[in-house]
Amino acid sequence: MLEELFFEPLTPGVLPATFGEVSAGHLAVIDGDNLGVMHPDGQGELGDARSACAGHRIGREGGTVTMGTRDLGARRDAAATIKKAALSLFSDVGYEAASMRQIAAAVGNQPASLYNHYPSKEEILWAICEEAMLTLITRGQEAAASSPDPVEQLRAFVRQHIRFHIDHREEARVINQQMTRLGRERYRQVTAMRDDYERSLRRILRRGARRGRFHVPDYRMASYAILAIGMHVSVWYRPDGPSPASAVVRHHEQLALQLAGTR
Amino acid sequence: MLEELFFEPLTPGVLPATFGEVSAGHLAVIDGDNLGVMHPDGQGELGDARSACAGHRIGREGGTVTMGTRDLGARRDAAATIKKAALSLFSDVGYEAASMRQIAAAVGNQPASLYNHYPSKEEILWAICEEAMLTLITRGQEAAASSPDPVEQLRAFVRQHIRFHIDHREEARVINQQMTRLGRERYRQVTAMRDDYERSLRRILRRGARRGRFHVPDYRMASYAILAIGMHVSVWYRPDGPSPASAVVRHHEQLALQLAGTR
Repeated sequence: MLEELFFEPLTPGVLPATFGEVSAGHLAVIDGDNLGVMHPDGQGELGDARSACAGHRIGREGGTVTMGTRDLGARRDAAATIKKAALSLFSDVGYEAASMRQIAAAVGNQPASLYNHYPSKEEILWAICEEAMLTLITRGQEAAASSPDPVEQLRAFVRQHIRFHIDHREEARVINQQMTRLGRERYRQVTAMRDDYERSLRRILRRGARRGRFHVPDYRMASYAILAIGMHVSVWYRPDGPSPASAVVRHHEQLALQLAGTR
Repeated sequence: MLEELFFEPLTPGVLPATFGEVSAGHLAVIDGDNLGVMHPDGQGELGDARSACAGHRIGREGGTVTMGTRDLGARRDAAATIKKAALSLFSDVGYEAASMRQIAAAVGNQPASLYNHYPSKEEILWAICEEAMLTLITRGQEAAASSPDPVEQLRAFVRQHIRFHIDHREEARVINQQMTRLGRERYRQVTAMRDDYERSLRRILRRGARRGRFHVPDYRMASYAILAIGMHVSVWYRPDGPSPASAVVRHHEQLALQLAGTR
């Protein structure tokens, strides 16, 4: 039942804006990245806490726990809509040229209302990067665990990697071209996630090489090469192009296996 | 002797600015991309034409032939200095964020003087793209002609491709990330040059596959993949990194040969 307390996963990228100070007497409950609010009288009595918080929006900004009364589902949808509009704009005109005003116009809002969801344009870029990288990391780990055979692991890894870069071309292009526009700390976080993803692939290559299945001159360069091939798919692939997505995925599985010197 | 009349090769990227209308009575002499100015009395008498033009700067803007008195060598150096400063700025802060004012400041000039060399920021980006693409096209063709053996051709192609992306990291990053900021016509020209370069590689792969030396599922995807690997080198390579440039080039030769299923 505890999870009912946790209204919304809080990640650094989707830190909600402040709606007002938490009422004195409320407690913040933090569970991993999740944050909840409880009435202290209701501590351990979840029913009380739940009723105290029902319909409230809770959040955290810096060290301040905040609470509001907006509808959570609608808010989440609005943030997703803003992120989607921003993604198209970043992809079309570039991050620097896209203004919060243009993003607001694209979703039919006033610029001020955007700041209720994202304190800055950088936070939207960060939210885009973070969501994409978390998806890749998860799928990369699943691929690495999908079979005891490193060759099958590499196949699965490349399959999800190419699939992602076909299905999320805009995200991929924005991340690859514009992540350098993030502030120092956000940039460090994205590159750390990217490194994490890359290590999944490098481990597959190393494991296969040790068993004599792969032959690569340098694990790091080979994994960079495989990742780069996928990133480039997001640049050239067109849904109305000559090759259907399934063929692109299949051909890239073969190219990656060959690149790894599979035997 | 005729070539003495042609002060400076004119390419779309380095169209000189107008210094003043050509004096009535001068003729423009156009030889390929080169443009000269002649006194009509001296037509055919090159000595006269040369003396009429000595020390003069000639150019073309749109349909207007123009002439000036600035020193050509100094002018060319100034344009190269501006391009270099712009490249660093585009690479550091992005094309959109870099202003002609900042570029001027970086070379210690007034913004107005920049416009004598480049009519717009886009022209500087274009000059960067064009120079890089012409270099790649030339070297790619040389690689394709370097040996009768497609495997050796692929080696040579990859060697120059990786070498370029190590030696010209800023250019490569700016082109790959920011060429979409060019206007429609310039963008079309760059992509046409890029396609030209890619075809050199694809022909090598096709030639080798026909002779049974390569095994690739799709020529286009295989050549995109090899190009992408090199482009990514310009992102991750650092002169102070763990692998010296020569090792990076050597390892990538092997990766590309493996990717092509060389036998």
